[in-house]
Amino acid sequence: MKVELCPTLNYIRDEDIKGKAVVVIDVLRATSVITTAINNGAKEVIVTIETEDAMRLKDKNSLLGGERKGLKIQGFDLSNSPLEYKKEVVLNKRIVISTTNGTKAIKMSEKADKIYIASMLNGNAVAETLIKEGLDVVIICAGTNGRFSLDDYACAGKIIYNINEKHEIDMDDFAISAYAAYRDHKANIIDYISMAKHYKYLLSIGYGEDIKYCFTEDIMRVVPEYINESIRIKK
Amino acid sequence: MKVELCPTLNYIRDEDIKGKAVVVIDVLRATSVITTAINNGAKEVIVTIETEDAMRLKDKNSLLGGERKGLKIQGFDLSNSPLEYKKEVVLNKRIVISTTNGTKAIKMSEKADKIYIASMLNGNAVAETLIKEGLDVVIICAGTNGRFSLDDYACAGKIIYNINEKHEIDMDDFAISAYAAYRDHKANIIDYISMAKHYKYLLSIGYGEDIKYCFTEDIMRVVPEYINESIRIKK
Repeated sequence: MKVELCPTLNYIRDEDIKGKAVVVIDVLRATSVITTAINNGAKEVIVTIETEDAMRLKDKNSLLGGERKGLKIQGFDLSNSPLEYKKEVVLNKRIVISTTNGTKAIKMSEKADKIYIASMLNGNAVAETLIKEGLDVVIICAGTNGRFSLDDYACAGKIIYNINEKHEIDMDDFAISAYAAYRDHKANIIDYISMAKHYKYLLSIGYGEDIKYCFTEDIMRVVPEYINESIRIKK
Repeated sequence: MKVELCPTLNYIRDEDIKGKAVVVIDVLRATSVITTAINNGAKEVIVTIETEDAMRLKDKNSLLGGERKGLKIQGFDLSNSPLEYKKEVVLNKRIVISTTNGTKAIKMSEKADKIYIASMLNGNAVAETLIKEGLDVVIICAGTNGRFSLDDYACAGKIIYNINEKHEIDMDDFAISAYAAYRDHKANIIDYISMAKHYKYLLSIGYGEDIKYCFTEDIMRVVPEYINESIRIKK
């Protein structure tokens, strides 16, 4: 099983993902939000790039969530804080989210055979699904505003590490570097990512609790899968 | 001083390097060859992409060097092994090299204000030059056949580490990850890169001694600079 790593959504190329399983990571915070919403019983999550598209999809069973520059969008029900996506809020709801990086990365992966949504919260469950499936894997770090983000890289490293614990893999050099970074820092991964630009930004706007939550490992077993513009639990 | 890292030559964009100092790294082995040749007294190094262009530039004071798939090119004087570029061979000569990755990365950096050639052999000297100059820096990992290469990344990490020892810098997240990788593995950097694809390939074709040499740190003080299609000692 080959495992390749893509540094940001700017480098997703159709020919590199065709026939493969793609894992999309935007750990701070879109894919942590999606994992949490699906885990807590949301019927589905719809991702949109433009806020207007999200608005159009709103109906009485929907909640709109997302962010611009890390902050809640005017007129939306929820921000991009995964802590808001509690069971009592999201159960049986359709969640429509619009975020800057994670959403784009998911949409740009549509040529892949399978698209899974991963975070630290469900990394090991995603790793086990990939092993069961046996397809070659491309892990996509969504990044922040088109730039490589250390937090996504750390999460990619975790998933590669989890796969490698249970299955022989052929990693490309970029995957090796992420694997080694996680292996060397897993005892204190938040310390490792504390130099990251987006970490510092989220901390500066008061989201320290979100960061702690997003770097809690393997508290969820759900594997959200994107099919036909909708994210649901993988069956 | 900003320091950014570019994962492979495929991601060099003119707008990202204009007004900046670019450092090109192809540690296994083009930039190790260039550093060695200039250190050992070559008058200049000319880089060409096509072998035919190199052939055309040949005259009685020139030596042709380079590789395809790691091996010497037919009709050339020297291979891409830096160990061949000894003082008694290169002194006062013009060296014309054609290599697959490093040469392309240098040519693609032409819009930068300054272009320096770096390797483990002269990393600290390059770092000191960058500090003295004070321009923002983009470090380019040439990569192997368009793909990210762990050996270039380790060398980038070393140079960033050396700058950071002496000067305050604002690193992008990718530079931070390389810095941390070098910091964590500098006691045995060859062990760190031993998982790399290109390392394994060079070892398989008998270039173990080259690898050891290319990962010897700071045995040279020269800083080769590329100006007008020619690489010479920075004055």
